[in-house]
Amino acid sequence: MLLRSACRIPKLGRFGLTPNRSISLSTQAVIPTATRYPHIIRDASFKEIEEKDIAFFRNAIKSPAGVITSEAPDELEPFNQDWMRRFKGRCSAVLRPTNSAEVSAVLKYCNENRIAVVPQGGNTGLVGGSVPVHDEIVLSLQNMNKIREFDPISGVLTCDAGCVLEVLDNHLEKQGFIMPLDLGAKGSCQIGGNVATNAGGLRLLRYGSLHGTVLSMEVVLADGRIVELGKPLRKDNTGFDLKQLFIGSEGTLGIITSVSILAPRRPKAVNVAMLGVSSFEGVQELFKYAKSELNEILSAYEFFDRTCLKLVKHHIPGIREPFETDVPFYVLIETSGSNKDHDDEKLSAFLDHVMTEGLVEDGALAQDTTQVAGMWNIRETITESLAKEGGNYKYDLSVPVPKLYSVVEEMQERLASVGLFAKDGSASGRVKHVVGFGHMGDGNLHLNLTSTGWSKDIEKAIEPFLYEVVQRHGGSISAEHGLGLMKAPYLRYSKSDDFIDLMKSMKMVFDPKGIMNPYKYFPS
Amino acid sequence: MLLRSACRIPKLGRFGLTPNRSISLSTQAVIPTATRYPHIIRDASFKEIEEKDIAFFRNAIKSPAGVITSEAPDELEPFNQDWMRRFKGRCSAVLRPTNSAEVSAVLKYCNENRIAVVPQGGNTGLVGGSVPVHDEIVLSLQNMNKIREFDPISGVLTCDAGCVLEVLDNHLEKQGFIMPLDLGAKGSCQIGGNVATNAGGLRLLRYGSLHGTVLSMEVVLADGRIVELGKPLRKDNTGFDLKQLFIGSEGTLGIITSVSILAPRRPKAVNVAMLGVSSFEGVQELFKYAKSELNEILSAYEFFDRTCLKLVKHHIPGIREPFETDVPFYVLIETSGSNKDHDDEKLSAFLDHVMTEGLVEDGALAQDTTQVAGMWNIRETITESLAKEGGNYKYDLSVPVPKLYSVVEEMQERLASVGLFAKDGSASGRVKHVVGFGHMGDGNLHLNLTSTGWSKDIEKAIEPFLYEVVQRHGGSISAEHGLGLMKAPYLRYSKSDDFIDLMKSMKMVFDPKGIMNPYKYFPS
Repeated sequence: MLLRSACRIPKLGRFGLTPNRSISLSTQAVIPTATRYPHIIRDASFKEIEEKDIAFFRNAIKSPAGVITSEAPDELEPFNQDWMRRFKGRCSAVLRPTNSAEVSAVLKYCNENRIAVVPQGGNTGLVGGSVPVHDEIVLSLQNMNKIREFDPISGVLTCDAGCVLEVLDNHLEKQGFIMPLDLGAKGSCQIGGNVATNAGGLRLLRYGSLHGTVLSMEVVLADGRIVELGKPLRKDNTGFDLKQLFIGSEGTLGIITSVSILAPRRPKAVNVAMLGVSSFEGVQELFKYAKSELNEILSAYEFFDRTCLKLVKHHIPGIREPFETDVPFYVLIETSGSNKDHDDEKLSAFLDHVMTEGLVEDGALAQDTTQVAGMWNIRETITESLAKEGGNYKYDLSVPVPKLYSVVEEMQERLASVGLFAKDGSASGRVKHVVGFGHMGDGNLHLNLTSTGWSKDIEKAIEPFLYEVVQRHGGSISAEHGLGLMKAPYLRYSKSDDFIDLMKSMKMVFDPKGIMNPYKYFPS
Repeated sequence: MLLRSACRIPKLGRFGLTPNRSISLSTQAVIPTATRYPHIIRDASFKEIEEKDIAFFRNAIKSPAGVITSEAPDELEPFNQDWMRRFKGRCSAVLRPTNSAEVSAVLKYCNENRIAVVPQGGNTGLVGGSVPVHDEIVLSLQNMNKIREFDPISGVLTCDAGCVLEVLDNHLEKQGFIMPLDLGAKGSCQIGGNVATNAGGLRLLRYGSLHGTVLSMEVVLADGRIVELGKPLRKDNTGFDLKQLFIGSEGTLGIITSVSILAPRRPKAVNVAMLGVSSFEGVQELFKYAKSELNEILSAYEFFDRTCLKLVKHHIPGIREPFETDVPFYVLIETSGSNKDHDDEKLSAFLDHVMTEGLVEDGALAQDTTQVAGMWNIRETITESLAKEGGNYKYDLSVPVPKLYSVVEEMQERLASVGLFAKDGSASGRVKHVVGFGHMGDGNLHLNLTSTGWSKDIEKAIEPFLYEVVQRHGGSISAEHGLGLMKAPYLRYSKSDDFIDLMKSMKMVFDPKGIMNPYKYFPS
């Protein structure tokens, strides 16, 4: 019994998360794009860039380093591939406008000349949505990074799309506010990209999705029109809420150039507890009770299974067994509130109850910022630990909470039935581990498999079986990562033909020539 | 000094709001539609209903009372006019299907035969959006009222579009949950209509808009296709979020037949305080401090001016002056949380501070449910009191919080300058009162004027001047009531031509023949 009673937790500036991009991915089974997607043939109707196009861009974008070309291949390279080095294009021009008028001039020209364009924010995506597939030009928002306005009465922040999430959060922190979203990539990702990909992340349970917090945006359409989609108001019932289409559109409709977003007050107290639970039913019961008793201060409810903990202990220095007995499931609960005495009392009463009632096997409450960071560190180093096991197959799925873990179990059964996986925990099959972890509070499962290396037969044993399981449970094949290049072919597992037809009609309205981020998002 | 220290507030089932539709509007300046909108000519391309159409509908809708025709004029009437009796149509057929297959059959037939259709929920709207303008048929959702499923783990409720909001809330209350929206019309309005009009209401400050809480919906398109727009998942990044277009589309794109919505846990404690403030700057400072100190438990921040209170005292029996001294502004603060001791403490500390620092002139904290109801009663009877003054001109506006009250003052100046209003409070002009009240926390101003009766010159002194003021302050001409028939002609004060063009393109995608709720929503 390691649970100690609640005590005051000092104010935390940060939640002790893994630093940005610190995870080594070198051991992952990275499959070159050409191998995975052999059928993506360049659309011959797109114009190939010529010297006169470059001349136009240099004239349209005034700042000295506004246009990068193949004359500087080293500068070009980071825009041509994603940070995991999984997707790689071969664009010969990167444009970095500094205002929406420049974006407009560029898009108008590209539309008239049928030049394909990939909008790029921080390029931190996981599905290959922000890098070219062939020779599309990249329009980077990184030089559009002005914070335009913050109103501390309403909490509305208006800024350029290229503002880095962490910069915005730091800006708000000084005034006692917080960005309503938080991601591991916060030091690099940009708010425009966050909005374009409908980023979820760590604060969604508490502050809701960007569909609720983004109040308005400025966009540049494919034909160069600059359009205000709404106003920075909390209520505005005048016409279709067109900005919503751009949230999660992954650059296929136009370019988001500025965003107004509602920032909540920054919580003054943060508490973290880790609990061990004997069944997934128990994890659900605990979640239900946490929502009831912690309610307005509950800010994270993360879970991971025993195998995840085992791998973290094995690979991450300094991480020990948290409890005296093994349990199959671990839960990390975070509270954030405006009064730490009250939060401590609520959490303490909650923990007393769940221990007394036997809802949890064991538990620990972080006593200081180091322990808070330590508990988050276990959760946040799961990905890194898995990577150190060899090849990884990674799936970001959304599943109704009651069915969340059964997806993992069905995957284990399936692989055992074809002799690829040993369910006795001996890791004797070619698939060594099949684990589940994720943002339980959001119904977001990260299902990961480790193996000795990538092979076609393992992939065939997983897909489309896994997508079928997700579909059967009424889930989604992409909870928060989006479609991009990687998941576009599988969209029909989540959306009907009628829905996809409507998507294509939307595309025709906003980008009739199809120049915006081609080859992605839509199934071929 | 009437402020008393915090004490325990018993659990409240209701917030003491005015009962549904109890407000007498008989004294309002009700202008017949034909007078206000003389230029709405019937679209001759729409088919007039014949006996064979009725025969088709009777066959398509199985339930006995599924089709109401002009054979029963008394039954038809309530569907042909709004509850304020301001808008009136002359449809000769009301259809009440019981499932989406029936809705589909009806719309397919109407689309093929070019029969115009008005979808109707509880018919509680304020802008004439849910009644026919001419002879469009009414498709009422009132017989589609099944609660399909509630999952107490995730809090996701799935139900037919015709479920009454209060019925849903009562259903959830038994399981410790609450609907994330609340309206005065909760006893009549239906969730499908709430979603179709993007209803705001009293809980928006706390639980956010329907764009964040509606997870998915089933719709029937104009051509009869039944399409699932998303899944009841908290995260789903697979394609454009098309359901968002239907939130606030006011029946112009298709018919919402079911909704999945995220329900929060029901708060266990509710506190209410009323405060007197000496300036609108002070009201804003108080709001800022309330957001900081009450943060996660703040559930309402309503304001009204001195004239509103004066009228309520005059017209509503039993309502007395709340404080010893007059103040120009009154604020009603509500908190809702999971632990009443904590909430009491937070609110008490907040009130001590704002009284000590002189942020408020005076204040009172409700000591029991009767006092809670009494305080809400003052706020909620403003509309009724205004109506008793004679003719009312009512505007529902969204304005950035810092500019909220200056809109009222500019309107007063304007009317004084043309001799219609006396600013000395003597009510000697033809416009007797120009008052402001509303959901300050949402930047939602209800600007109301009273006069001896409706006259064209008063209206011309108000409009378009008021819309120009709102436009200049970056506001919206409709915060929560929508466009409907009434505000459609003024859309350009809130949206650009490019935006309206895009709206028309959306309409063309979903309803190319224009049968869905014609004559409304779009400026002619």
